[in-house]
Amino acid sequence: MSTLAPRAASLSTQASELDDDDALARFGTQFVDSEGLVAYLDGNSLGRPLRTTADDVRAFIDEEWGGRLIRGWDERWLAEPFALGDRLGGACLGAAPGQTVIADSTTVNLYKLIRAAVELAGAPESGRTEIVVDTDNFPTDRYLVEGIAAERGLTLHWIEADPSSGVTAEQAERAITGRTAVVVLSHVAYRSGYLADGAAITALAHRAGALIVWDLCHSVGSVPVALDEWGADFAAGCTYKYLNGGPGSPAFAYVAERHQDAFRQPVQGWLGRREAFEMGLGYEPAAGIRRFVSGTPPIFGMLPLRGMLALVEEAGIDAIREKSVQLTEFAIAAHRELLEPFGVVLASPVDAAHRGGHITLEHPSFRELNQRLWARGVIPDFRAPQGLRLGLSPLSTSFGEVLRGVEAVREELVHVI
Amino acid sequence: MSTLAPRAASLSTQASELDDDDALARFGTQFVDSEGLVAYLDGNSLGRPLRTTADDVRAFIDEEWGGRLIRGWDERWLAEPFALGDRLGGACLGAAPGQTVIADSTTVNLYKLIRAAVELAGAPESGRTEIVVDTDNFPTDRYLVEGIAAERGLTLHWIEADPSSGVTAEQAERAITGRTAVVVLSHVAYRSGYLADGAAITALAHRAGALIVWDLCHSVGSVPVALDEWGADFAAGCTYKYLNGGPGSPAFAYVAERHQDAFRQPVQGWLGRREAFEMGLGYEPAAGIRRFVSGTPPIFGMLPLRGMLALVEEAGIDAIREKSVQLTEFAIAAHRELLEPFGVVLASPVDAAHRGGHITLEHPSFRELNQRLWARGVIPDFRAPQGLRLGLSPLSTSFGEVLRGVEAVREELVHVI
Repeated sequence: MSTLAPRAASLSTQASELDDDDALARFGTQFVDSEGLVAYLDGNSLGRPLRTTADDVRAFIDEEWGGRLIRGWDERWLAEPFALGDRLGGACLGAAPGQTVIADSTTVNLYKLIRAAVELAGAPESGRTEIVVDTDNFPTDRYLVEGIAAERGLTLHWIEADPSSGVTAEQAERAITGRTAVVVLSHVAYRSGYLADGAAITALAHRAGALIVWDLCHSVGSVPVALDEWGADFAAGCTYKYLNGGPGSPAFAYVAERHQDAFRQPVQGWLGRREAFEMGLGYEPAAGIRRFVSGTPPIFGMLPLRGMLALVEEAGIDAIREKSVQLTEFAIAAHRELLEPFGVVLASPVDAAHRGGHITLEHPSFRELNQRLWARGVIPDFRAPQGLRLGLSPLSTSFGEVLRGVEAVREELVHVI
Repeated sequence: MSTLAPRAASLSTQASELDDDDALARFGTQFVDSEGLVAYLDGNSLGRPLRTTADDVRAFIDEEWGGRLIRGWDERWLAEPFALGDRLGGACLGAAPGQTVIADSTTVNLYKLIRAAVELAGAPESGRTEIVVDTDNFPTDRYLVEGIAAERGLTLHWIEADPSSGVTAEQAERAITGRTAVVVLSHVAYRSGYLADGAAITALAHRAGALIVWDLCHSVGSVPVALDEWGADFAAGCTYKYLNGGPGSPAFAYVAERHQDAFRQPVQGWLGRREAFEMGLGYEPAAGIRRFVSGTPPIFGMLPLRGMLALVEEAGIDAIREKSVQLTEFAIAAHRELLEPFGVVLASPVDAAHRGGHITLEHPSFRELNQRLWARGVIPDFRAPQGLRLGLSPLSTSFGEVLRGVEAVREELVHVI
C-alpha cells in the first residue's frame, strides 16, 4: 500500500478541494450519523434519514394522528398524496401540478400504469401486440410485463441492452414499430447507471403511435427529469433512494393530464371513486389524477418524504445534478488510479452526459469483498454476478467519503487477490 | 335535559362500575392524548397512536434505518413482513405461521387474492362463472370485483344484504352454487357491524366447490377470527383500525398454506421472485407466502404496528372481544335510554353474537350533527346517508367515554330537532 501513497495523496488533495468548493456541502450535516460509518456509497438503494425526521414524526403523532384523530383525513391527509406529488413533480420531474401522486409501491404503480397503457393502446385488438422492454431493466419491470403480456395476450419485444451501458435511442428506434403498444424503460439503468435519452425515446415511441412508461427509480432526485417537456405518457418511481423516504416508503406515479380522462386502472378501490365518501354502488372513476388511487393512502409512510423534498427544493435539482456528476467523475478517477491496476473494470458510461448518479465496478471478488467492506463501515451495494455499485447521493455524500470508500475497496482487494 | 337527569345518572353509575371492573382498563393510559378530546368513538376507522410509538420510530431511525443503513434489509427488514404477519396471524387471525404477510393496502391485497382465487377456480372455463359478493360490502370490495369480473369475463352474483344487519348463512347458501368461482365477503360489516358466520359460510363455499376471500378490516383486533379452523382460503384486512398502525398503514394478507404452491398473483414484482437478489431473467414465484409480495415492503410504514401487536398479545383477543361486547352492549343501552326517544334508530344487530366492535345509529340529522360533535371533541364517524357509527376500540375506550359521547349526541339532537 505504502508504495502508492503519493498517488492517493493527489486524489486526497482533489477530494479536499472539491469538498471545499461544494456549494451543497452544508446539507451533509443534516443526516443521522451511523456509528462506525466510514463511507456510505449506497444512497441510491436507501437514502439516509434526516436528523429532523424523528421530530417530524413525533409532531405528526402528537398533533395530527393523535391530536386530530380521524379529523386528520378531512383536514389534510386526503389531499396529502396529491400535495406531495405536486411538490415532487415540480422539484424533480418537470411535471406541472395535477399529474403526480404518492401511492403504493413502484411495482404496484407500474402494474397499474402498464395495464392502463395497454388498454389505451387498444392492444392487442388494435394490432399493437407488443410491449417493448429491455433485458437489463430492473427485475420488477421485466417480471411485471411478463405477467401482463400473458394475461392480455401480448408478446414481449426484448431489447438486448448492454449491461455496462443501457438502451440507446438507436436500439429503441429499431425495437419500436407499428406493432408496439407500450414501451417500458428505465430512465437510469439500475446497474450501469446509464442515463437514457428520455426526450428522444419518448418521441420515437409517439412517432410509432405507441405509449411509454418510464421507470424513474434511479433518476428521481439526482437527475433532472422533464416529463412534460418530453411529452411522456406515464411514469413511476420510488422515494426511498435519493428522496430518503425510508425503507419501503410509498412510490409515486405520473399520469399525463391528456390521458387522465381515459385512464382506467385495474385495481378499482374506494378512494379512486367519484364522491368516495358516498360509498355508492358501482365504480365510477374520480376526475383527474385521483382515479389512480386504489386504497387508503399511506400517510404515515410518506412522512419522511416531506422533509427531504424541502431540502431538494432548497438545493435545486440542477445543482444536485451538477454535484452528482462531479461525484461520479471523481469516483471514476479514483477507480482509475486505485482499482484499475487490480483488474477492476468500470461497467458504467464514461461520458457523464450518459450517466446517472451511480456507477458500477466489476471484479470476480466483489461478492465476497462487499461483505468485508460492510463489516468495516464502508457500504456500497453488491449486484450479481460481480458488480460493486457506488450510489452517490449528492446531498449526503462528500468527495472525501468517496475516496475513503474507494481506498477501502483497494485495501480489501489486496487481501483477496 | 334536566328532566332526564336521573336516568342518565343511572347510566353514569353503570359506566363507573363497568370501568372499575374493566380488566383491560390499564391499557387506556397507553395512548397519546388529544387536546379537547371528550370521547373518541371512531377507533374502527383510525386507532389512536401509542405513547411509545414516537420513541419506537426514533429508535428505528437512529439504530436501524440511520444506523445500519442498507444492511438493515439483510439483518431484519426482509423478514419483517412475515415476522409481523405471523404475530398478527397468531394473535388475531387463528392462523398458523407462514400464511400471513404485511403488505400493500387492503385494496391491492384483495385484488391480488381475488385474481389468484379466480385463476385457481379455473374461471370461467371451468363453468364457474360467478363471483358472489353482497350489496352492502365495503366499496373497495364491490368496486374491485366489478373490475375483475369485467377483465376475466365473469358475472357478479349480488347478495342483497340488509344494511342494518348483514349476510346470513342462509342468504349465502342460496347465492353460492356450482357456478360460483369465488365468494368475497366481509367478516364484520362496515356499517352495521354485523358479524358473519365465518365457519359456516366458508363451509358452504367449499361444499359448492368455490373459494372464499374474507375481508377482515372490521374484525381484526376486535373479534376473534379462526381462519385455519374455518378452513378459509384467503383473507385480507387493514391495520389502521383496531391495530393502530396509523393513517394508511400497510395491510395484511393471508394465503392458506394448501394454496400457496399454486398461488399465482398478477402483480409480479422483484421481491416475490425466487432468489430475488439474483435478479435473474424470468419471473418464478418464491416458495410459500413470500410469493404474495410484489414490491419493496413498507418497513417504515409498519413500525407503529409492532407496539400495538405487543399490547394485543398481552391483553389477548378473547379478553378484547369480551370488553368489546360489553362496550357495544353499553352503547346500545345508552342509546335506548337517551337517543331512541328522539327517533334515533339502531341499525346494528341487537344480539351481541352477531355484532362486531361497532354499532351504527340512524337519524336524518346525523350528517349535520356529526360536524357539530367533531367541533366539540366528540368523534364518531358519519356514514351516508344518515348513519352515525360508534367504533369502540377495546384497549383505548372507556365506558365513561361511551356515555359522554352518547350524552353529547343527545344534547346536539336537542338543538337540531
